[in-house]
Amino acid sequence: MAASFGVCRLFYLGLEPQTQRRLASTISAIKAQTGNKTARAAKEDKTFQAIQEERREQAERSVLISCPPRFSEKKFLDYLSKHGTINKHFFYSSYGAYAVVEFSSKESIASLKENTNIPAVEHEAAVPFKSRLLSLKWPGSQSNNQPVPNFQEQSPPSIGDITQLLSEKDSVDEQLQCLTGALQLTEENISLRFLVCSLLGDIAGAYFPECIIRPFGSTVNSFGKLGCDVDMILDLDGIYATSQKKGSGLSLEYQVKRGASERAVTQSILSVIGKCVDQFGPGCVGVQKILQARCPLVRFSHQPSGFQCDLTANNRVAMKSSELLFLYGQLDPRVRHLVFSVRCWARVHNITSSIPGAWITNFTLTVMVVFFLQQRNPPILPTLDQLKDLAGPSDKCVIEGNDCTIVSDLSKITLQKNTDTLEKLLQEFFEFYGNFPFNKASINIRKGKEQTKPETTALYIQNPFETTLNVSKNVNATQLERFVKLCQESAWLLQKREILNRSSSQSAESVLPWGFAALLLPSVTSGTGVKSRRKRKLEPASSRIKNLLDSLKIKGGETVAKKGSTNPSR
Amino acid sequence: MAASFGVCRLFYLGLEPQTQRRLASTISAIKAQTGNKTARAAKEDKTFQAIQEERREQAERSVLISCPPRFSEKKFLDYLSKHGTINKHFFYSSYGAYAVVEFSSKESIASLKENTNIPAVEHEAAVPFKSRLLSLKWPGSQSNNQPVPNFQEQSPPSIGDITQLLSEKDSVDEQLQCLTGALQLTEENISLRFLVCSLLGDIAGAYFPECIIRPFGSTVNSFGKLGCDVDMILDLDGIYATSQKKGSGLSLEYQVKRGASERAVTQSILSVIGKCVDQFGPGCVGVQKILQARCPLVRFSHQPSGFQCDLTANNRVAMKSSELLFLYGQLDPRVRHLVFSVRCWARVHNITSSIPGAWITNFTLTVMVVFFLQQRNPPILPTLDQLKDLAGPSDKCVIEGNDCTIVSDLSKITLQKNTDTLEKLLQEFFEFYGNFPFNKASINIRKGKEQTKPETTALYIQNPFETTLNVSKNVNATQLERFVKLCQESAWLLQKREILNRSSSQSAESVLPWGFAALLLPSVTSGTGVKSRRKRKLEPASSRIKNLLDSLKIKGGETVAKKGSTNPSR
Repeated sequence: MAASFGVCRLFYLGLEPQTQRRLASTISAIKAQTGNKTARAAKEDKTFQAIQEERREQAERSVLISCPPRFSEKKFLDYLSKHGTINKHFFYSSYGAYAVVEFSSKESIASLKENTNIPAVEHEAAVPFKSRLLSLKWPGSQSNNQPVPNFQEQSPPSIGDITQLLSEKDSVDEQLQCLTGALQLTEENISLRFLVCSLLGDIAGAYFPECIIRPFGSTVNSFGKLGCDVDMILDLDGIYATSQKKGSGLSLEYQVKRGASERAVTQSILSVIGKCVDQFGPGCVGVQKILQARCPLVRFSHQPSGFQCDLTANNRVAMKSSELLFLYGQLDPRVRHLVFSVRCWARVHNITSSIPGAWITNFTLTVMVVFFLQQRNPPILPTLDQLKDLAGPSDKCVIEGNDCTIVSDLSKITLQKNTDTLEKLLQEFFEFYGNFPFNKASINIRKGKEQTKPETTALYIQNPFETTLNVSKNVNATQLERFVKLCQESAWLLQKREILNRSSSQSAESVLPWGFAALLLPSVTSGTGVKSRRKRKLEPASSRIKNLLDSLKIKGGETVAKKGSTNPSR
Repeated sequence: MAASFGVCRLFYLGLEPQTQRRLASTISAIKAQTGNKTARAAKEDKTFQAIQEERREQAERSVLISCPPRFSEKKFLDYLSKHGTINKHFFYSSYGAYAVVEFSSKESIASLKENTNIPAVEHEAAVPFKSRLLSLKWPGSQSNNQPVPNFQEQSPPSIGDITQLLSEKDSVDEQLQCLTGALQLTEENISLRFLVCSLLGDIAGAYFPECIIRPFGSTVNSFGKLGCDVDMILDLDGIYATSQKKGSGLSLEYQVKRGASERAVTQSILSVIGKCVDQFGPGCVGVQKILQARCPLVRFSHQPSGFQCDLTANNRVAMKSSELLFLYGQLDPRVRHLVFSVRCWARVHNITSSIPGAWITNFTLTVMVVFFLQQRNPPILPTLDQLKDLAGPSDKCVIEGNDCTIVSDLSKITLQKNTDTLEKLLQEFFEFYGNFPFNKASINIRKGKEQTKPETTALYIQNPFETTLNVSKNVNATQLERFVKLCQESAWLLQKREILNRSSSQSAESVLPWGFAALLLPSVTSGTGVKSRRKRKLEPASSRIKNLLDSLKIKGGETVAKKGSTNPSR
């Protein structure tokens, strides 16, 4: 892989300065990820829970500091080191420049806070809530002469940059590996996500000291893409864990406010936390309390990190689903490469969307990739039932009546030898779903088998843990049809093999997209082509609005659409 | 005073059982107060601040426990003593039976909380906020056979009980002393008030750890009556006190939410605390956020204590006024006796009211008593300027440009010898204000002199610290006239001396109100007499409603009327 970086470097010297800068940051992100590989490998013997716990604990020892655009990294670190040993640190720019600094001990945070001022001039017009989001004050005019530290990229590369980058690779396998490296969350980005959860935990922990704000979904399932939302759970289980001692004699109980139901109490707690985030939480803006949704949530933007955050409560199945995906992602590197590629391909062709509706979701796509890999011969991934059978007594997990047990010790899992290339798997994926009998069969990763559809919905994918539910209930026939047609088209393009020929005579300036990059070009059938875009424009507005309304209805209570991303590759 | 209790005891044996019970509780309250005298005397060398600080610190070591109606005090204390030494405890009944338990160390609270359960059965429909308001669970049916502990009275006696009680006294001076004893806050009640502030402080302290919820007004000014509201200030000064270090080099600042003004931030903070109290605060009901008032406040009922609470912020002048009244109350016992008597007399005759409006307030009445005592020859109380002149350097206090300096060390104050009896002072008070030139003179306790009225308002009493303000701006001519007429009538009744003769031949059953008790009987001029009550009934409803609206308007932003008390003596 180091060799291919060399090629990229030579290649991008001929590009526009702006494109050069973007590509440089992409490559540095990929390099960072290459470094991560080692870190990830070292973590492979740890369970999902152990990794999350370690990251959470690191976040609790960390601070987020707003910095001037230029400053001496050395002076900055010397200043902070007065309060204790610094384990790790990095800089990034979002709405301004920021540093994440992880101390080796939590006491350093207390010492640092003791020496931190409340903004003096306007202090009476500011809410004096002392969080771990600080600002570095550089004395006077000294800042101008300072160097610019190495700010790490926290956004994904644009689709244009990706296409160029991939076209320089020598094989489809290299392309898919490179794509994963360019899109996946960096170690630093994951740290920042845990830090934002930890900062929010300080707000929630004010009333519920034993509570933990845990990230779930893409932040932890190993399939997260740079720029994706941070999904969080308010985990209150620790509160109950410490008490409930019963004797035969006298006992004491806390007097507590009662709610009409667990849901009402969840709404109440989220409502107060939402208000606190809104009024006290520095850098937290655009707070929306979406409490009437099936799963009540508080949504807000955390400006210093640039993250869109969704806080829910009592969502333990979602956390278990994250663990399951993480586990599948760890078993074979091809899983993540294929998932990242299929998701990128789907996003470019508007198969998935950043707003809720009848579109196929990333989770659905991931389950489809897992199912496809279970169907290989020999299978690349075990079934969920096999993961359950390997589980030890401590892995036992039942959530609201659903058996969510899976093995946590990856070393117990023996995989069969399958040496298929990524290129082969990609082609077979498109063929598999281009010809899948969606009209009668459902997808079931628990059994690893097609099953008869229990309902007449367009697409039926059994929820892995809540087995009576369909994870793709939202998908309508039109969207499924678009997906199938695109699979067929991509399979056909790969079968033709024309796009697999990389012309070596091309100069760096005029490299043509080939291989996987060619699959990202606008399609005639997908609605991303010029023709169909024009066709859509001619549709009467009323019909487009009706479709939008229909798609919003499907989500039930949650009618507030996510903000559309301006980044087409998001 | 012990002898007179004996008289009371003999006397009330002849009464209805219900009246007997009420009187018994009144007398026990008075007895408790007699005990308090010693406690108060011991505290006399302490400054106001030191006393408040001591009470606050005691409250932080205390818990409030809901109890069954019958239980063994010994077993209860044995159970709690496992967690540390108990300094003090008492029981009272309000909405149910409660215990206040003060440990000698704060660690005992932590230990106790460790061993306290969250209600188990419905735990998912309860907000698991762990406060210091607990419930004692007595095992099974054992409770029925247990004794009833000594529950202390926390409500004031009714006006009927007071009249009977006073009529048994042998002199007007004894009557006024007895009245103070019956109405004033008990040590236990003050402890309970500080505890409620401390419990609320736990809620506010979640976000502002250095903040303190301080009671002010009647809870601390030594003129508080059983059943009066708890006025609280959210004091955030401690937050700023710890920081604001400045060096020449790098420094760190907290990132904080900005508000448009200090007022906007106060509203925001009170709004969030109000929401937290409403949603999380056990026992807190009827939360009203009155944020648009001149002084934004959160009002709520704390059911376990039975207190109506008003939480404001940034109200340091109010705290200083409390200190001033406290100081005047400590200088000579006659001050408190006269204030309690005049306030009781005013309340019975509807000169004061529990709803906001054009009525004279308790604070106004107290300042009038202070001014009257400054006018005696020789003066019983020093002027505010004299108290300022005696102040030491550490007493210096300027709040928002107003010099609020007063001496804190009472031993520095030398009083002139004045041996007037309470009877004489009461009569002179009525004569003084029955003849006061309210039309042209204003009352000024800072100078201790009448001054020319700077405005044409009916009653002008200079605010002691904010000297450009009139504390009685709300009072209209009608209300002032009623006050003056009642003063004249009471002065006349006392001058006639008929009511001062206690007929010794009266039997216990038919004791006639005499002395001060006779002044509490309905008056012809005051509007409490039968005749005028009938007259009011004939007033058209529209006129009564107009008056009510007028009186509400006077309070400006604050249009939410206080709940009327059902206790006529409140």
